[in-house]
Amino acid sequence: MAHPVLYLKKHEDQRLRKGHLWVFSNEIDTQRSPLEAFTPGDLAQIHSADGKAMGTAYVNPNTLICARLLSRKANLKCGQNFFKDRLSTALALREKAFAQPYYRLVFGESDGLPGVVIDRFGSVFSVQITTAGIEQRKTALLDALVELFTPTAIVLKNDNGQRELEGLSLESEIAYGELPDTLTIEENGAHFNINIVDGQKTGWFYDHRNSRAQLASMAKGLRVLDLFSYTGAWGIPAAQAGAAEVTCVDASEGALTLAAESARLNGVAKRMQFVRSDVFEFLKQARLDNELYDIIVLDPPALIKRKKDFKQGYEAYRRLNHLALQVLGKNGILVSASCSFHLSRDNLQEILRSSGRHIDRHLTFFASLGQGPDHPIDPAIPETDYLKTFFCSVSSSL
Amino acid sequence: MAHPVLYLKKHEDQRLRKGHLWVFSNEIDTQRSPLEAFTPGDLAQIHSADGKAMGTAYVNPNTLICARLLSRKANLKCGQNFFKDRLSTALALREKAFAQPYYRLVFGESDGLPGVVIDRFGSVFSVQITTAGIEQRKTALLDALVELFTPTAIVLKNDNGQRELEGLSLESEIAYGELPDTLTIEENGAHFNINIVDGQKTGWFYDHRNSRAQLASMAKGLRVLDLFSYTGAWGIPAAQAGAAEVTCVDASEGALTLAAESARLNGVAKRMQFVRSDVFEFLKQARLDNELYDIIVLDPPALIKRKKDFKQGYEAYRRLNHLALQVLGKNGILVSASCSFHLSRDNLQEILRSSGRHIDRHLTFFASLGQGPDHPIDPAIPETDYLKTFFCSVSSSL
Repeated sequence: MAHPVLYLKKHEDQRLRKGHLWVFSNEIDTQRSPLEAFTPGDLAQIHSADGKAMGTAYVNPNTLICARLLSRKANLKCGQNFFKDRLSTALALREKAFAQPYYRLVFGESDGLPGVVIDRFGSVFSVQITTAGIEQRKTALLDALVELFTPTAIVLKNDNGQRELEGLSLESEIAYGELPDTLTIEENGAHFNINIVDGQKTGWFYDHRNSRAQLASMAKGLRVLDLFSYTGAWGIPAAQAGAAEVTCVDASEGALTLAAESARLNGVAKRMQFVRSDVFEFLKQARLDNELYDIIVLDPPALIKRKKDFKQGYEAYRRLNHLALQVLGKNGILVSASCSFHLSRDNLQEILRSSGRHIDRHLTFFASLGQGPDHPIDPAIPETDYLKTFFCSVSSSL
Repeated sequence: MAHPVLYLKKHEDQRLRKGHLWVFSNEIDTQRSPLEAFTPGDLAQIHSADGKAMGTAYVNPNTLICARLLSRKANLKCGQNFFKDRLSTALALREKAFAQPYYRLVFGESDGLPGVVIDRFGSVFSVQITTAGIEQRKTALLDALVELFTPTAIVLKNDNGQRELEGLSLESEIAYGELPDTLTIEENGAHFNINIVDGQKTGWFYDHRNSRAQLASMAKGLRVLDLFSYTGAWGIPAAQAGAAEVTCVDASEGALTLAAESARLNGVAKRMQFVRSDVFEFLKQARLDNELYDIIVLDPPALIKRKKDFKQGYEAYRRLNHLALQVLGKNGILVSASCSFHLSRDNLQEILRSSGRHIDRHLTFFASLGQGPDHPIDPAIPETDYLKTFFCSVSSSL
């Protein structure tokens, strides 16, 4: 069965030809192929203006991105086999990169599955569906997951705001199996209790794994400040690696409770403190108290969610980095991260350069890292490249 | 004693204010402070047009970069204590990052020592001096090195072409102590025999250390092709980590002889092959022979040495990546690197994107790495950021 055709306007096939998977609604030749003929989630063949088939996409006539390509084949059957195929390819890469089954199994477009994020916690899977196209094929996706992995539980964490734009409801549910009372995962040799249902996003942030390992490798004997600590994924391995003292600061009581639990689990509770506070306020107070840390980790949540928030968000990143540098001791290390897609690597680099100059210190990057191997970047899709982490060595002015 | 003053033209203090250390000859107010008054290597105070002191630099009136800042202090005494201070700060960072004394100890401008590169091989040091300003203070630098490290030997590897621009001769010599008959170093758990005197640059390339570790972590059971292998720093740890077969290809007989020696030293000679060949020719032949590799490392020497070579060099990178992708097996991994400063990260990303599209494969980056911690990047000095390495997962088209 052939899918109905959506025709692009002249020259609007360039993005797809270069490897991107998105079609914007203003790129459709709606005279020739009205978008209203589609209901959210329908499949379509995308054709260039001169009639060349570009592949199969799912359509949402009500969103700015009106179609996302699932395949370069014109008449893809998007059933369980399709999902099994994509999941298997994604798994092959993770199995090469990781010895243990704790990773992001599917990272949307980069794994050929726009609208899907799946985190794997051993035999428990946390699935996020953000588009109508996938929502409509949810059963096929979950069946494929069950067949390939025989999971203990699958949680649908469908509480992402993007769903509202797609006309989908916000809801979290256990879609398959039963969740264990306590779910413990391993990262960088430490164990963590996590809470998928009440936690942020899928319940855990695997993306910083490599950077956290780099931190731990340098933490021995040092005084570490972990800002926006969430459930302790930076601080706990650092304590395990022999940090003299680790202070985790976060605004969420729930996150800190989990962090403290995991600290006990790893036998490092004695050398850790958990402070519930706004980070700006904490840093201002620390400065007044003349506190100095050897290593500061500054890993805020996305402070620029939309392009229009750039100016305000940039200023927040600038202030945070500036404040952090002021409580960093001699020959200290600042680990400065941003997960905002709209704050570029160059933007964060410039914030660090100018902050270093401003307080008259010599600041260099001895590591410039990003997403771990379970968050692959598609070079044709800039939106898949969002995480940057600079390890800064900060010494007195030259 | 005050150094003579070099005045900048109006607004030409911006680069220095932002943290860079270079002054170009056309930025000097030569009416006010003639460059001819200086001989190569002299110290000067750099002043802005309105008379603000910017720091102390060494001068070479005959080169495009006519002054390089050594300090933000106006009247620095650039003797042994200065070098001891810089070396100690550089050492403090390396000791945090590395458990063993094998690393680049000084990376020029990033360590506040423009014109100096020092690699440390245990108690042997390989020093490269590229400017008249440092050449003139060589004794103070070497004395500081001896005092801090009590080395077995210091080799001056002064065979870099940049020296000729500075009016310096090309020469290599053992400046202190005695070199052992065989020098063995450790990287990523493997041992390597190296040859400082006859080797390229300082005799070893520490900059890819982290990327080589990433390769080894994924190599188990796989067929690895190591192109431009030099002395085997990628291939040997991969073989040690259990690669089924590693083929090293290089044009230099001497490099391959050292690589074969190190392979025996690590007990992996049986699973390694060493092929002396031009890499382009090797890849063309491999394609004709229908060879397929699971992992290909493509780490060419700098193919763009000067800006004017960009077009030709870009084309060489493009062809190499294209050829390599054609002998990569199913769900294969391409590790593609460039050490050319003039080929940007975006340039190499674009080469990989377009090559992937061209042969109709789905190519994503699961790691995007660069220089190790002993090659810090100064965010104010773009020239310190030169190395990029993309780990590409290459599967069949979506």
